[in-house]
Amino acid sequence: MILRMSTLFVRTLREDPADAEVPSHRLLVRAGYIRRAGPGLYSWLPLGLRVLRNIERIVREEMDGMGAQELQFPALLPREPYEASGRWTEYGDGIFRLKDRKQGDYLLGPTHEEMFTLAVKDLYSSYKDLPVWLYQIQTKYRDEARPRAGLLRGREFIMKDSYSFDTTDEGLDASYAAHREAYIRTFDRLGFEYVIVKATAGAMGGSKSEEFLARADNGEDTYVRCTHCDYAANVEAVEVAAPQPVAYDGVPAAHAEQTPDTPTIETLVDHLNEKFPRDDRPWHAGDTLKNVLVVLKHPDGTREPLAIGLPGDREVDEKRLGGQLEPTEVVAFEEKDFAANPALVKGYIGPGALGEKNASGIRYVVDPRVVEGTRWVTGADVDGSHVIDLVAGRDFTPDGTIEAAEVRAGDPCPRCFDTDGGTLETARGIEMGHIFQLGRKYADALDLRVLDENGKLVTVTMGSYGIGVSRAVAAIAENTHDELGLVWPREVAPADVHLVATGKDQAVFEAAAALAENLHGQGLTVLYDDRQKVSPGVKFKDAELLGVPTIVVVGKGLADGVVEVKDRATAERTDVALDEVPDHVVRVVRG
Amino acid sequence: MILRMSTLFVRTLREDPADAEVPSHRLLVRAGYIRRAGPGLYSWLPLGLRVLRNIERIVREEMDGMGAQELQFPALLPREPYEASGRWTEYGDGIFRLKDRKQGDYLLGPTHEEMFTLAVKDLYSSYKDLPVWLYQIQTKYRDEARPRAGLLRGREFIMKDSYSFDTTDEGLDASYAAHREAYIRTFDRLGFEYVIVKATAGAMGGSKSEEFLARADNGEDTYVRCTHCDYAANVEAVEVAAPQPVAYDGVPAAHAEQTPDTPTIETLVDHLNEKFPRDDRPWHAGDTLKNVLVVLKHPDGTREPLAIGLPGDREVDEKRLGGQLEPTEVVAFEEKDFAANPALVKGYIGPGALGEKNASGIRYVVDPRVVEGTRWVTGADVDGSHVIDLVAGRDFTPDGTIEAAEVRAGDPCPRCFDTDGGTLETARGIEMGHIFQLGRKYADALDLRVLDENGKLVTVTMGSYGIGVSRAVAAIAENTHDELGLVWPREVAPADVHLVATGKDQAVFEAAAALAENLHGQGLTVLYDDRQKVSPGVKFKDAELLGVPTIVVVGKGLADGVVEVKDRATAERTDVALDEVPDHVVRVVRG
Repeated sequence: MILRMSTLFVRTLREDPADAEVPSHRLLVRAGYIRRAGPGLYSWLPLGLRVLRNIERIVREEMDGMGAQELQFPALLPREPYEASGRWTEYGDGIFRLKDRKQGDYLLGPTHEEMFTLAVKDLYSSYKDLPVWLYQIQTKYRDEARPRAGLLRGREFIMKDSYSFDTTDEGLDASYAAHREAYIRTFDRLGFEYVIVKATAGAMGGSKSEEFLARADNGEDTYVRCTHCDYAANVEAVEVAAPQPVAYDGVPAAHAEQTPDTPTIETLVDHLNEKFPRDDRPWHAGDTLKNVLVVLKHPDGTREPLAIGLPGDREVDEKRLGGQLEPTEVVAFEEKDFAANPALVKGYIGPGALGEKNASGIRYVVDPRVVEGTRWVTGADVDGSHVIDLVAGRDFTPDGTIEAAEVRAGDPCPRCFDTDGGTLETARGIEMGHIFQLGRKYADALDLRVLDENGKLVTVTMGSYGIGVSRAVAAIAENTHDELGLVWPREVAPADVHLVATGKDQAVFEAAAALAENLHGQGLTVLYDDRQKVSPGVKFKDAELLGVPTIVVVGKGLADGVVEVKDRATAERTDVALDEVPDHVVRVVRG
Repeated sequence: MILRMSTLFVRTLREDPADAEVPSHRLLVRAGYIRRAGPGLYSWLPLGLRVLRNIERIVREEMDGMGAQELQFPALLPREPYEASGRWTEYGDGIFRLKDRKQGDYLLGPTHEEMFTLAVKDLYSSYKDLPVWLYQIQTKYRDEARPRAGLLRGREFIMKDSYSFDTTDEGLDASYAAHREAYIRTFDRLGFEYVIVKATAGAMGGSKSEEFLARADNGEDTYVRCTHCDYAANVEAVEVAAPQPVAYDGVPAAHAEQTPDTPTIETLVDHLNEKFPRDDRPWHAGDTLKNVLVVLKHPDGTREPLAIGLPGDREVDEKRLGGQLEPTEVVAFEEKDFAANPALVKGYIGPGALGEKNASGIRYVVDPRVVEGTRWVTGADVDGSHVIDLVAGRDFTPDGTIEAAEVRAGDPCPRCFDTDGGTLETARGIEMGHIFQLGRKYADALDLRVLDENGKLVTVTMGSYGIGVSRAVAAIAENTHDELGLVWPREVAPADVHLVATGKDQAVFEAAAALAENLHGQGLTVLYDDRQKVSPGVKFKDAELLGVPTIVVVGKGLADGVVEVKDRATAERTDVALDEVPDHVVRVVRG
């Protein structure tokens, strides 16, 4: 195929679009790949669509290659299956709902677990039919609160979602592993740097869960990785390595002390160092046990207070907390909640009042670092008073632990700190894929059961696997661009070669046209800049901006029988004799 | 690619689905190509999706081949552009509207004239950029009042819509002609019988308009064709050949006569034959002028009465009438309208009271057959009285003509009756494509203007061209199936070959597996029925039902080194020596 710049539906812009926050958005608009159609809604112009289709093709080939089967569900879906799974409500404002002319309720599908589950239920009935792996590449919808960064967080986007169906947990593990391998092959072909991080399954429930993140300094997702080993995890999924219990034989009995006007950790630490100085080292925030109150808003609408105990030098990370509790929502503990719990003394709340067995009856969960034997200063549940030498497991017993404390650079690596001393550092990325084990949630909700070897009905267990196909266009751009423009990896580039004819000499245009035909004849896609009245400078700038991997310039050198072949990524230039150009270019393109 | 029946996500059904009204729907569900997901909503199972993709590919190749450029707009669209064009309102209940979390108004795109217009306005500014032909293959939405017949009238469906942009009417004609040619190539490749019929442009406005209909006895669209020449037209678009004016020198003056109790045409004709017999021939319904009253409901909500005069032997065809008046809606003339127009005498309404210059002031339009000099019996605007010998052009002058009378088999062909005596016959079909000249409606509404050669701004003129891609799956099935099942044309079939291994002999399965690999190696897609415990009878029935064009049976004949190759459409069987099968099949498939 030959795409001629003189007629191609594209216009490059020298100026950045006003609403573009990130390089990929800026460059994709400037290069004429996409246009905004509304908040979080984008139109694909021809070059952008070519990149999108290339990514779709790669994803499809790898899914087909692993033995998954493609089908396609509607995007407009009736309410009933989502009602049965509970997601009609769980999604809150996050999905688009609408009514048809008969006032029937519909939604625009955010993901299709329900439909896949029902399809398998419709067609299959025996363990012999399983495992089966099904997928679709489809337009999805989410009513994002803050659509942003162009294609990175849109409201209409293209996703590949696939699902595995097995009768046993071992089968699910195998299906999960097969998808993981296929994802690695897919992302390797897409040609950008990525990292596989442990993740929480979020609203989906389930057990094993990993995300494929594109490395990107301004990605939305923060993750942590070990400085030493290959541990990497979504911040939400980092599991603090719980320390071993500590001996507390020598710890004095807990004693309440007057600590007037110390409602904050900072004032408390200052007060402790002034009034109760320690011999070995000064008090610091990490010696205190901070008790944070929140209210859980359950999907059924009920409210439940929750107390979280954590070292005073750490804040609660709302995303980590939310990730643990989804689909339950976390909201603020308000004055009315204090009023309803008179045992709580604001600023001086301690384990003495917390926990299901204590005065408030509020469930009390603590950071995993609060292990048996650890020794804390914390609220005495009396105004202006704290307890010192309060020992976990001796003086109080929480109702459980929770991973809600912020993760910090320098924290011990949960995998290798004990043996190798690795610590965590934070990095940012863009979520490109998510694989996780759904388990039996949807099969239970929609009654997907099959007969096992013994003729007994068993509930099917599922895995769910997604790739953000349209997001990948932006993520790749984000990951590979340079200061001059886009730099496409070869497999996703909108063309194999960007052929530029410069100057006014008709011989140049004739030679370039012949070269375009020759390369096209060899199966390459040629973006041919055949514009007659555009200066070489503008053409070169456009070529840098558009980002086709190989740029061939037919210009002044033609008089000497020479054509320039340039690598967009490395800027390496090679002069090639005109008649050797086709072979040379084909070799470069095909590797 | 090899699709193995043992693992393919498909189940064939022996029974017809209860809700299937037409063969294509029945067979596509029974063969496991599609499943219903809701009213007018269908899921594509793997085999159905393969057919759909083949059709998409053919459409894309022909659009690319003609020089059109593919892009893709969102399906979820903001209200504003559709407000500007008037279609937000005009579509009435026919589109899905929804609100986002900020209460912004959106719709699910039924077609994308507005978006294409805005895209060209965004990128282009000069006549030098035109013509440009743009298209997309995309999921569309319409909230049909009565979704029916499976894919034939769905609420979510896939369409190719393209648009041409020109500065001049001559340019539009050329763009229209280029699309017409590309459509002919496309529909020829799709492999079903079709007819090109003149059409009205409907809600779209515009001038030239043609539909591509698949021939189908139970198609939704009725059209007429000439028994003699190649004239064919949508019933809505048939233009009655207006007869030449008739001399009326000898016609007596109009005279009102008592015709009591003759409120219907039938009672009137009987009365005339009894009381006012004619010498030459009896009175018949065609001698009377029937005046039908309706009310026009304009898009702005105003109501306007309209009177339609037509020969008494013809009814008003509501679709033809509606087609002439869109987007204005036609509703019943009610008692309150009679009350508001006291000049109208029910059952005896005549031209004396009608017309903008007469008593009622109601606009009066007549069938084109009511030409100057024609002589009628019609209401005298007095209860129980009719006028005889009322001559059009002498005794009354209508406000215009309208094509609203029913078209009947046997009517003169508007193209060749005068010269060759051709008459019309009716036939049914399924609308597969529609090409028409939109003109400047959208460019005006959205201010798409470009500079012409003289530096003057001119409004762009557009053509609009659609192909029902998902509907084509059903239309082809409808057009090509037989009593045994589906019969796919080669280019759209889900596989090139359906290879069936029968019996229990492992040698058969080994030979079949080797053959499948061989054919796959030669680039063919093989649907391989490798099921071990399924009887040959069931396998043959499935092969007939699934409709792959070439069926290869490896079975008992293998002992003699022979394999059966069968043509699904003709049922012709050929015994081929095993080692010659690959070459034979490749020859059959590649033609």
